[in-house]
Amino acid sequence: MPATRVFLDAGGRAPVTRRTADALLAGVADGWADPTRLTNESRRARAVLDGAREAIADAIGADAAHLHFLPSAHVAAERVTAGVFRARRGRERIVVSAIERQAILDAADHTAPDAVDRIPVDDAGHVNLDELEARVSHPATALALIQHANQEIGTVQHMDEVAAITRRAEVPLIVDASASIGHLDPPTEWDALLADPADWGAPAGLGVLATRPRTRWLAAWPGEGWAPGGVSIPLALASAVALQERREAYETNRARLTALTDRIRAGLAGLEGVTVVGDADARVPHLLTAAFLYLDGEPVVTRLDREGFAVGSGSACGTAAFEPSHVLAAMGALTHGNLRIGLHPGVADEDVARFIATLPRVLEDVRRTMTAD
Amino acid sequence: MPATRVFLDAGGRAPVTRRTADALLAGVADGWADPTRLTNESRRARAVLDGAREAIADAIGADAAHLHFLPSAHVAAERVTAGVFRARRGRERIVVSAIERQAILDAADHTAPDAVDRIPVDDAGHVNLDELEARVSHPATALALIQHANQEIGTVQHMDEVAAITRRAEVPLIVDASASIGHLDPPTEWDALLADPADWGAPAGLGVLATRPRTRWLAAWPGEGWAPGGVSIPLALASAVALQERREAYETNRARLTALTDRIRAGLAGLEGVTVVGDADARVPHLLTAAFLYLDGEPVVTRLDREGFAVGSGSACGTAAFEPSHVLAAMGALTHGNLRIGLHPGVADEDVARFIATLPRVLEDVRRTMTAD
Repeated sequence: MPATRVFLDAGGRAPVTRRTADALLAGVADGWADPTRLTNESRRARAVLDGAREAIADAIGADAAHLHFLPSAHVAAERVTAGVFRARRGRERIVVSAIERQAILDAADHTAPDAVDRIPVDDAGHVNLDELEARVSHPATALALIQHANQEIGTVQHMDEVAAITRRAEVPLIVDASASIGHLDPPTEWDALLADPADWGAPAGLGVLATRPRTRWLAAWPGEGWAPGGVSIPLALASAVALQERREAYETNRARLTALTDRIRAGLAGLEGVTVVGDADARVPHLLTAAFLYLDGEPVVTRLDREGFAVGSGSACGTAAFEPSHVLAAMGALTHGNLRIGLHPGVADEDVARFIATLPRVLEDVRRTMTAD
Repeated sequence: MPATRVFLDAGGRAPVTRRTADALLAGVADGWADPTRLTNESRRARAVLDGAREAIADAIGADAAHLHFLPSAHVAAERVTAGVFRARRGRERIVVSAIERQAILDAADHTAPDAVDRIPVDDAGHVNLDELEARVSHPATALALIQHANQEIGTVQHMDEVAAITRRAEVPLIVDASASIGHLDPPTEWDALLADPADWGAPAGLGVLATRPRTRWLAAWPGEGWAPGGVSIPLALASAVALQERREAYETNRARLTALTDRIRAGLAGLEGVTVVGDADARVPHLLTAAFLYLDGEPVVTRLDREGFAVGSGSACGTAAFEPSHVLAAMGALTHGNLRIGLHPGVADEDVARFIATLPRVLEDVRRTMTAD
C-alpha cells in the first residue's frame, strides 16, 4: 500500500474529521442515557439531542419541531414514503425520477407495488418536467419523490419548477437531498426532505427527515412516531457538528471543489472512449462520473486503489458495487463501465493533480489487459 | 445536584466505559468507509464489521454468518417478527408472552392485527406453559415470541421447556434476550434471537439479530437483507468490545450484583406497602422492581434523582416513562406506582448501601406529600 492514500470516493461517506470524532465522544459522555426518562442523566441526553436537532434544522431550513432523526438513511427513506403514502389513502400511485437512489426506488416499489411511475431524464440528468406534470396530475398519484442532486453524476434538478408542478397538482413532494445538504444551499420547497449525515462527513448510521407542519403522514410501522425506541444521540451530535464544520467553510469549499472537479472533468474529457456525464454547471461541487465505452469499472477502481487512490464505480447506491448504474442507463449514456469521483474538503489540490496525472496511464493499462484477455 | 451521582437505572442503557468509548473512536478511524466497496478504506471497514460480528456471535452462541446488525433494537424486533411471519404464509396468528417488552408487542400487533395471543404469566412472571402449548399447537400459529429475561422484574423464563413446546409444535421461536445477554449465559434454543447492545453497556443505536441456518424468513421491507444500507460500524465495534468487557468479569459481576440486588430486595421488603415482584431466584443479577401500594412512581424517581440516585419507574420500555407497567398488570401485582433498579458493574457496594439507607426516608417524604395533597 502506498504511504499516502488519497480518498476520492466521498459520496455518501467521507473521512470523519477530528472535530466530528470529538463530538461523537462528547455525545457518548453526555448522551448515553435514555432521553425519555426523568433523571438528571436523561435530561442531559435530551438536551444533547435537542441541541443537535436545532442545529441541523437551522442548517437545512426546517422547523426543529419537525426535524426527525431515524435509525438510518434507508429507514428514513422507507418510512417517509410509507407514512406519507398511508395518509393519502385512496391514491395508489407514486411518482419518482428514474435516477433516484436505489433506497428510494426500493421504498417506492415496496409501498406501491406495480404502481410506480418513473419520470425519464434528459442526457444531462434533468427530470422531464412535462412528463412529471402529466404524471402528478393523475388523480391516483399519492406523492412524488424527486431528488435535489444526483449521488453519481451530481446534476441538480430544477427544484423550483418541480415544486411548482407538484404544488399545482396538490401532491406532496418528498425531496431526497442526501447528496446535496452540506455541499449546496438546501432546497426550500418540499413537504418532506431527506438527508444523510454520512454524506456530509458524520459517521454513518442516522437518517434525517424534515417535514412541514402541514405535512400529513400516518405511521405504517409498529409503535408511535417516526423512530420508536429512539436513535443514537452521539451520532446526532456528531452529525450536527459535521454539518456545522461544512457550513463554516462553505463558500471556500464550494469554490475550491468546483474548480478541482472542473480540472478532473477537463483531464478526463481528452481521453478516448471516456465521457463525463451530467450537467457541467447545475451540479454539486464535489461529484463527477465518467462513463467508459470500452472499459470495465472494476479493474479501474482496483488499479487506482493499488496506486493509492480510492474512487467509486457502478451504481453508487446499489446493493452491489459493480451493478450497472441505473442512473447512467436512465440518461441513455452508452457505458461499459464507469468511475465516480467524490471530493471531500480534506483533499489537497496536489492530490488531485497527481490523480489527473496518473489516470491516463491506469486507463491505458486496463485497456491493454482487457484486450489481452 | 449532589457531587456524586449514582446511576441505578441500568436496564436498556448503562454508562459507557472508557474502553468501550475508545473502541467507538477506533471504529470511526478504521470503519468510516462504505464496507460494500472495493477500496482499501472499504476493506478495512469490512474487516472491523466482520470482527465485531464474529466476536458477538461467539459470545451469544450464534453462527457469525447468521449474526445480523440492524439499525436499532426496535427495527430488529420489527423486522424479525415481520420476516419470519411472512415466510410462514397461510398462518396468521402470533403467540407472545404478556410481559414482552413494548417493542415486541407493537411488532406483533402490527404484523398480525387482532391475531396476537398473549400468554398469561404467574405471579413470579413465568409464562403459563400449558397455555403456551395450547396456543402454539393451533395450526394458524405462525411464530412465538418469548423473552429470555424480563426487562423490569428480571424473571428468567424456563426456556428449555418453552423451546420444547415450540419445537414439538414446529413453530419458530423468537427469543428476545435483550435484557439478559451480557448478564447471564445466553439461551441456547431458538430460531431467532434478539439482543440490544445498549443493555450491556454499548452506546445505543444498533440491534443484534441471530438466526439459525434453518430459520426461514422473507424480507417484508424495501431492499435486500435484514439491513439494506447497512449500520454504524463504530457502534458494531463498540458493541463487541462492551460485551467482551462484560464477559471478562462475568462471574465476578454476576455474584456481586446478585448479592447487591438481594440486599436491596431485603431492604425494600421491610417497608410498608412495598412489594418486590418477580422470581427471587430465577432472575438476572442486576434488575429488580418494587411495586408500591400507595405511592406514585414519579415523585419517588424525582426525589431520588435530587438526592443523587437515578432509578427507573413505570413501564421500562413503554413510550412514556410513567405509563402503568403492562408487565406488573399482567402479573396481577396490585400497584399504584413502581420503582425499577438496574445495577451496572461500575456501581460500588457503598453506593448501594447509601441508597438502601436513603430510600425509606424518601418514600416516607413522598407519602407525606401525597397525603398532604
